[in-house]
Amino acid sequence: MQWSELADQPCSFSRTLSVIGDRWSLMILRDCFMKVRRFDDFHDRLGIGRPILTDRLRKLVANFVLTKVAYQQNPTRYEYRLTQKGLDLYPVVMAIVHWGDIHMNDRKGRPLIHHHLPCGHDFDPVMTCSECQAELSPREVTIRPGPGARDTVHLPPRAATAPRSRQRSKPAG
Amino acid sequence: MQWSELADQPCSFSRTLSVIGDRWSLMILRDCFMKVRRFDDFHDRLGIGRPILTDRLRKLVANFVLTKVAYQQNPTRYEYRLTQKGLDLYPVVMAIVHWGDIHMNDRKGRPLIHHHLPCGHDFDPVMTCSECQAELSPREVTIRPGPGARDTVHLPPRAATAPRSRQRSKPAG
Repeated sequence: MQWSELADQPCSFSRTLSVIGDRWSLMILRDCFMKVRRFDDFHDRLGIGRPILTDRLRKLVANFVLTKVAYQQNPTRYEYRLTQKGLDLYPVVMAIVHWGDIHMNDRKGRPLIHHHLPCGHDFDPVMTCSECQAELSPREVTIRPGPGARDTVHLPPRAATAPRSRQRSKPAG
Repeated sequence: MQWSELADQPCSFSRTLSVIGDRWSLMILRDCFMKVRRFDDFHDRLGIGRPILTDRLRKLVANFVLTKVAYQQNPTRYEYRLTQKGLDLYPVVMAIVHWGDIHMNDRKGRPLIHHHLPCGHDFDPVMTCSECQAELSPREVTIRPGPGARDTVHLPPRAATAPRSRQRSKPAG
């Protein structure tokens, strides 16, 4: 499979990666959620080449993740803002940050503290079930084909069976 | 900034991407959560070249996301299993899948249905606050430097201020 074919796969994971699976696109998105909006600011913070930055911003706009808005006339200058589709990537960004906070924190503690305004507490993001609100564990989730399934290549080898424990140190047989 | 410098940044997002920001690594992880474990199975499902697959698996093992376990002797053959560090990436994978389910579903509906065994319902993953259990919205979260902050480059331009609405169609000034 070529990388360019990802968007055509009957798999929501592959399709999402076809839009944001590029490493610099993800770094740009992180900055967008920190209210960075202007080309030169992205450039200064990320230190990537202008052609690459131009290309990634163009792609995010083309996929309706960002929208380009004029903030000045004569000469016209633009800034990049998250659309609702882009804002909906917040769980992706928070999940990536949280894993780094736990597993890549350099023993000094996390670089950023997140504060939840409605409840007034510092918090960790927790991925929960929409139906029972319990925290999700991969061992308690099963998968089966949905209406958008086209073939079985991207389904699990044994769909609709609960995954066994992955913590055993020896193989099953 | 070179891509290889990401792991050294005082930013949990960059550090996580230094381990899993590679596109194929993410695709391999998706398959790991579907209980794919063997080199040839990854190869057949993902259709990537063996040298790239070898490299990505080696990197995931080196970063303790996967562990290599012998499942056969004479000749010795190995399979790859998620460690606890790897299992902790489940929210990242689920967040990516869910965004694709909502925004990239090709109008046919989602390719996979997720079922939560403890409550017995099909579900969507919801990212919530650990303290008040409410669903997180980027507009209700502020950020401030934590104990691991080293400089201000990777902090938001205006730390500890609430983000304004990003939905306005015209710039502020």
